Amino acid sequence: MKARVTVTLKNGILDPQGKAIEGALKSLGVAGIASVRQGKVFDIELAADADKAKAEAALKDAADKLLANTVIENYRVEVLG
Amino acid sequence: MKARVTVTLKNGILDPQGKAIEGALKSLGVAGIASVRQGKVFDIELAADADKAKAEAALKDAADKLLANTVIENYRVEVLG
Repeated sequence: MKARVTVTLKNGILDPQGKAIEGALKSLGVAGIASVRQGKVFDIELAADADKAKAEAALKDAADKLLANTVIENYRVEVLG
Repeated sequence: MKARVTVTLKNGILDPQGKAIEGALKSLGVAGIASVRQGKVFDIELAADADKAKAEAALKDAADKLLANTVIENYRVEVLG
């Protein structure tokens, strides 16, 4: 079973990395970019026989404990099946 | 106009960071995780009046030049509108 956890910064949290990328894209001549915010994505393989609810619970557990800093980050769990 | 560029490692490329996360999740007692691969996600705001085709071209340009190392990474561009 495949799943994806996407972790992004909460609104209002400053993203210096995103700002640096914005500047670099401008200097590289890439047009039309107003703002960039960087996040993380985790592609996770679960045991084949795991049922969807258990998988979702395990992924939320993983995100809360390790993958995301829930003080400044949001996460989204997608069980792709 | 909002868009998202998702950058992930190509198949077969070793992901030590993903391996480290796998180990950490096991030691944290998160059950059922077989493998983890980490990638990057960029939430990009484009000029409001940009048309979709031009936006897509600019994002591909940004990914090729900066956001992805196309030797070892794949990227996917989604213009969300």
